[in-house]
Amino acid sequence: MLKNTESNRRFIKKNKVTVTKIYQKGCGELDQFNEQGWNLLAEEVSFPIAVLNERALKRNAQWMQSFTDKSAVQFAPHGKTTMAPELFKLQLAQGCWGISLATVPQVLNAYHSGIKRIVLANQLVGGYHFDLIADLLTHDDFVFYCFVDSIENVHSLGKYFTERNMPLNILIEIGVDGGRCGWRDIAHISPLIEVIKQYDCLHLSGLSFYEGVIHGDEATKKIKDFVKGIVYLTNQLSVNKAFYNSDVIITGAGSAWYDVVAKQLMLGSNPGLNFTAIIRPGCYLIHDTGIYQQAQNAVIERSQLACDISGELTSSLEVWAYVHSIPEPGLAIIGLGKRDIAFDAGLPMPQLHFRPELKCAGISHANHTSRTYQQNPQNEKNQTKPQPVDKRWQVVDIMDQHCMMRIPQDANLLVGDLVSFSSSHPCLTMDKWRQVAIVDEAFIVRKTIATYF
Amino acid sequence: MLKNTESNRRFIKKNKVTVTKIYQKGCGELDQFNEQGWNLLAEEVSFPIAVLNERALKRNAQWMQSFTDKSAVQFAPHGKTTMAPELFKLQLAQGCWGISLATVPQVLNAYHSGIKRIVLANQLVGGYHFDLIADLLTHDDFVFYCFVDSIENVHSLGKYFTERNMPLNILIEIGVDGGRCGWRDIAHISPLIEVIKQYDCLHLSGLSFYEGVIHGDEATKKIKDFVKGIVYLTNQLSVNKAFYNSDVIITGAGSAWYDVVAKQLMLGSNPGLNFTAIIRPGCYLIHDTGIYQQAQNAVIERSQLACDISGELTSSLEVWAYVHSIPEPGLAIIGLGKRDIAFDAGLPMPQLHFRPELKCAGISHANHTSRTYQQNPQNEKNQTKPQPVDKRWQVVDIMDQHCMMRIPQDANLLVGDLVSFSSSHPCLTMDKWRQVAIVDEAFIVRKTIATYF
Repeated sequence: MLKNTESNRRFIKKNKVTVTKIYQKGCGELDQFNEQGWNLLAEEVSFPIAVLNERALKRNAQWMQSFTDKSAVQFAPHGKTTMAPELFKLQLAQGCWGISLATVPQVLNAYHSGIKRIVLANQLVGGYHFDLIADLLTHDDFVFYCFVDSIENVHSLGKYFTERNMPLNILIEIGVDGGRCGWRDIAHISPLIEVIKQYDCLHLSGLSFYEGVIHGDEATKKIKDFVKGIVYLTNQLSVNKAFYNSDVIITGAGSAWYDVVAKQLMLGSNPGLNFTAIIRPGCYLIHDTGIYQQAQNAVIERSQLACDISGELTSSLEVWAYVHSIPEPGLAIIGLGKRDIAFDAGLPMPQLHFRPELKCAGISHANHTSRTYQQNPQNEKNQTKPQPVDKRWQVVDIMDQHCMMRIPQDANLLVGDLVSFSSSHPCLTMDKWRQVAIVDEAFIVRKTIATYF
Repeated sequence: MLKNTESNRRFIKKNKVTVTKIYQKGCGELDQFNEQGWNLLAEEVSFPIAVLNERALKRNAQWMQSFTDKSAVQFAPHGKTTMAPELFKLQLAQGCWGISLATVPQVLNAYHSGIKRIVLANQLVGGYHFDLIADLLTHDDFVFYCFVDSIENVHSLGKYFTERNMPLNILIEIGVDGGRCGWRDIAHISPLIEVIKQYDCLHLSGLSFYEGVIHGDEATKKIKDFVKGIVYLTNQLSVNKAFYNSDVIITGAGSAWYDVVAKQLMLGSNPGLNFTAIIRPGCYLIHDTGIYQQAQNAVIERSQLACDISGELTSSLEVWAYVHSIPEPGLAIIGLGKRDIAFDAGLPMPQLHFRPELKCAGISHANHTSRTYQQNPQNEKNQTKPQPVDKRWQVVDIMDQHCMMRIPQDANLLVGDLVSFSSSHPCLTMDKWRQVAIVDEAFIVRKTIATYF
C-alpha cells in the first residue's frame, strides 16, 4: 500500500471532485488502483463505503451468461443498473452481445469507455440528443439502436437524420395498456410503419418491449401472450418487408421475467423468420436480498433451464457503516442514510458485524468500559473476522444520513462497530456512489471503479 | 457561446468523469463557465437537467439571513442539503456564522473548497475519520466542532486526540426518546461529563440537539420543553464549570421548527450565561413545493417575526425533462425518474410546459401531424415562453428513468415537449446531480455548479 505521504494527500485533495464519499489513504487515481489495497476491517477507508464482492460479481456474470447461452438468446444487459464501464467490460468478456442503456448521457459515457454496440432502450428525443448521437454515429465502430413508439418521434428523427444524411437503426417499441412507453395496438400499427417508410435514413431493425410493467396474478400468462403477439407481429412485418435487414431483432426482458421471455421468444422462432432474440436484464450482476432475490426465486421455480445451471445469483453489493450511537437500550443509530443505500423497495438489511481494533495505543475497542454492555462477556473477545448479525437486528427507519436499527437490549453492539447492509433494488444503491470498491473475501479493496450517473 | 468545435468536443470527452448527466455544447469546465450560457428552451443541453433559479436562490438566502438576524441567533446552515460549495459561499456572503455538515467526507470537501468554520452535526466515529480530521486541524484556519453522545465515543476521541496532542472541540448532543442520536437523560449526564473531563484534549464547547424527530399533535409544546431543558442544562453545566470557554454554544434546529427553537433559545438567554445560539436549517435555500413548503407555511402561521420579513421562501429548484411518449390517451411518459428527482416525500409536481422548435429545417414542432392532438388549435401556435401546466397534469408513478403523468385526454402535450418538475425534499433531488445549472429568468444557464455527494 502506498504510504500516506504529504504529496499523496495533496493528490487526494486535487481529485476531490471525483473522490467524494471514499476518502482513503494514499491514493488518488482510484480506478487505476489494482494492487494490494486498503483493508476495510482495519478502517483504512472512510465509511459508509459501498463494496462489491469480486467473487460474487464474477459468479453472477457467469450464471446469467450460462442462462442466455443455454436459452439460445443474445444478451445486452441493461447498463443503467451500475453505470460502471468496468462492469460492462466484465459482462462483455463473458460473451454479451452489447449493452443496453436508458439515456443519451449514459450512451456517451459507455461509448467513450470502450463499449461499441449499444441499445438505447428508450426513445431518442430532443435536439441536442440528436446532435450527440449523430456525432457518435460518425465513428465507424459505433453500432447503435434506439426505440420508437410514436409518429411524432419518427417524424423528428426522420427529418433530422435525413438532413444529416445519416442512417439510424430503430426498433419499434410495443407497450401494454396502462404501462410505460410503447405502441399499444399491434393490430393497427400500419400508420407508424407508413411514417417510418417515408424516411430512407430510418432503418427499421426489429421490435422491442419491456414486460416488467405487467403485474397481477395472471402475469405469467399475460407476458407469454404479450411476447407471442410481438413474435407474430414480427413475422407479419417481415412478410410485408417492413424491416431494413433480413436479420431482425426482437428485444425485451428485465430482471424479473427474463426466463419467460427467453422461452417464449425461442418458441416463436421458426424457419421462415430469421430473428435475433436479445434479452436485457441488468440487476443480476449486482443482485440484491430484496425484490430481485424474490424475482430470482420465482425464476428458479418456473424454469428448469435456470434450475439446471450450477450455482446461483447472490447479492454482491454491501454498504458498510459505523454505529454512531446506541442512545437507548434496543436502538442503534447507524451512519448510513438515504444518500448511501436504496430505500425505495424495502429498508437496508444488516448482514455482518465487525468490531475494529481501536487506533490509539493498540487498545481493542472491546476493552473499553461499555456503558450499556459491560456485563456482556462476548465483548472481551475481539473478533478477527465479520460475523453474521443476529436476525433480530432490523432497520426500522431511514433518514438522509442515518438509519435506525432495532436490536435486542442485550445485543453485542458498540458505538464504533462496523455493520454491513444489503439492500433491495441495486440500481438505487449504485447511483449513490461515484466510486465503488471491489473487495476480496478478506475485505481488502482490490480496485475501485467509477460510476457515471 | 463557444462554438461546437472538434477541440471543444474532445474536451467534453476528456472530462466525462465529471460531466455526466449534463452534456452540453462547447464547454467542459462547467464550474468555470460564467459568461453567456446555453439556452434550455433552445435545447442546448441534455435533458433531464436540474436547474436552480438564480433570483429565487438569492431571495431565499436573504430571507433566512434576515430571520436569523432579527432573531438574534447565529446561523450555520446545514450544507448536506446541497453539498455545493458555491452555494455555501453564497450563504456565508449573507452573513452565516459557519456551515454544518453530516459526514467527514463532506467536511473535507467543504474545507478544501474554502469553508473554514464547520460544525460536524454528527458523531465523529472511526479510525480513518479521526486521521482525516486531525490532519485538517493542523491548518490554523480550520475551526471545527463535532457532537458526542456516548461514553465509548468520548473515550475513543479522547485517547486518539491525546496521542496526537491535539485539541478537539466537542458539543454534547441531547436526544429524545425514540429519536435519533443524543444523550437521553439530562438529569443524569454526569457520567458523560466525568469521562470528558478525563481528557484535556477534549474541549467541551456547548450543547447540541436536533428537534426534527419530534412529531405528533403536541410537537410545538414538546419542542419548547425540550429546548428549555437544554438551556437549563447549559446553565447548570456552566455553573459547574464543565465548559472549556466562557462562550458556550447551543445549536439545534432543522428546517421545520427553526422559529420555535430560535425563540426558545433567546427566551432562555439570561445575563448570567453567555451563550451563542446557532440554528442549522439547510433546506430553505433550495426549498421545495412539498414538505418544506408545508413546514414553512406553519412557520409563517406561528411566527410574527417570520411573517414580518418581506418576501417569502420559494422553490428554486426544477428538473426539466422531455415527454418521451404519449402511448395512450391521458398518459404521458416523461424521461425523468428516481435517478433524477426526489420521490421519498411525494412524487414530482409538473410546473411549466414548453414546446421547443424542431431543430431540422426550421420547422416548428407544432406543425407536425400529431396523431392524438391534431384537432387542437392551440398546437398551431408555438409558445415563446414556458406556460404553467394544467393543474390536472399529475405524476402518478415513477421508475428508475421514467415517470408516468396523467393528463386530460385533450391535453395540449406532444412527444418532444419539455416539462419542468418541482419536488418535495430538496436534499434528495440535489444528491442525484454532479452538476446543477444556475439559470436566469429566461432559462439561460449562467453557471453550472458542482456537488460533492
